[in-house]
Amino acid sequence: MTPADPKLLANIRIVLTRTSHPGNIGAAARAMKTMGLSQLVLVDPAVFPNSQADAMASGAADLLAQARVCTSLAEALADTTLALGVSARRRDIVSEVLTPPEASLRLLSEAPVGPVALVFGNETSGLSNEELSLCQGLVTIAANPDYSSLNLAAAVQVLGYEIRQAWLGHASWPQPEMDAATGDEVEKFYGHLETALAELEFLNPGSPGKLMLKLRRLFARTRLAKEEVNILRGILTAAQEAKQAASRMLNRDAE
Amino acid sequence: MTPADPKLLANIRIVLTRTSHPGNIGAAARAMKTMGLSQLVLVDPAVFPNSQADAMASGAADLLAQARVCTSLAEALADTTLALGVSARRRDIVSEVLTPPEASLRLLSEAPVGPVALVFGNETSGLSNEELSLCQGLVTIAANPDYSSLNLAAAVQVLGYEIRQAWLGHASWPQPEMDAATGDEVEKFYGHLETALAELEFLNPGSPGKLMLKLRRLFARTRLAKEEVNILRGILTAAQEAKQAASRMLNRDAE
Repeated sequence: MTPADPKLLANIRIVLTRTSHPGNIGAAARAMKTMGLSQLVLVDPAVFPNSQADAMASGAADLLAQARVCTSLAEALADTTLALGVSARRRDIVSEVLTPPEASLRLLSEAPVGPVALVFGNETSGLSNEELSLCQGLVTIAANPDYSSLNLAAAVQVLGYEIRQAWLGHASWPQPEMDAATGDEVEKFYGHLETALAELEFLNPGSPGKLMLKLRRLFARTRLAKEEVNILRGILTAAQEAKQAASRMLNRDAE
Repeated sequence: MTPADPKLLANIRIVLTRTSHPGNIGAAARAMKTMGLSQLVLVDPAVFPNSQADAMASGAADLLAQARVCTSLAEALADTTLALGVSARRRDIVSEVLTPPEASLRLLSEAPVGPVALVFGNETSGLSNEELSLCQGLVTIAANPDYSSLNLAAAVQVLGYEIRQAWLGHASWPQPEMDAATGDEVEKFYGHLETALAELEFLNPGSPGKLMLKLRRLFARTRLAKEEVNILRGILTAAQEAKQAASRMLNRDAE
């Protein structure tokens, strides 16, 4: 078997959102490096950089030095084609719940094309519904139902371990056939969708919440290709133009 | 599928030897509890009990309260029929190196009969050769060759995770056919063997090291049954008696 391609691991991003304790960031970096993962992205960390993070990183200080800090999860995922959220329990916001081996295969299958992400929430509150809505799937570690509270770095270690085992087990990964849309492209589509639906008076722009979440869930499940996003946005534009024309005519008639 | 038997997990002991940092003991207890493991044994810990251990244990303080403290690894393994040592790299002291899934299956196969153990060494130096010689096999987590240094609790988390996955995947475990000798019985056999070999002038009692390690490796690979230990010790006793008789005769002839 030819050795597995290190570029695949370099395309798998570990995203930690709203981490409270800098020590956990350092311990997560150490866990990543032991499994050959190198791309750490921090979204709105409470404290970073920090000496406690450095101490817990041990020999993985290079990962902290190279870590990217973002102000929003959308920014962290803008160029990714796949983002999976890690959660201790099943959540309703996305329909698909993967085991760690399933998630590893999915990430490694997409990694030849471009960056993919595994997203970990805050230590106490986990991933918010808004954060989960930016993910295309959910990963759950089967834990003791009486005490399922894995430490953040421990969860990174388990997922990193499974990714490495899957990576070692497959010398080559097939190129995915679909030219997947990036997170940024998909988010722009959702923005366009929300605007268009408001213009069509299909949703209340003051409280778009539930409907938009349901639509996100639908599209997250299908995984959108670039071309599909273009088609959908073309349809939205056409609908907007029709509505604007109708409004203009209505206003003219009323004059 | 009927639910897996919780008694199996209760028979899998996590043994931490010569742990330097009490925080690691607490974090290991937390990792264990998230995977449903409860039996923690500490061999000669540097500091225990300790407030840092309590803090890192989070909701797993009960495991620390129930932890058994031993002065030697032999004491910790005395009633076990199988002990596997965890090491970051391949060592020569025992020939068999298992992956975490293989180790999990082995431990769960033996657990219906009695206690089995997974042994973790000191944070810096790992397991000593003497400690490894008390184990019947070695487990290695396939890590990044450039940085394979998993934190102690992270290693406990990965092994605990694999044990839980194997446990969840098999509703029932076959009873092992062999009536395995306990660690204490096997150690007494090794003691007897060394004495007998010295009496036979087969080894130098001043430096029995290498030969005894080779013999331990041999027997560790085969896994000894109680009956086999009795047979081997019977042979040793017979050899000792023959040697003593020969010496007596030699002395008498020399008189």
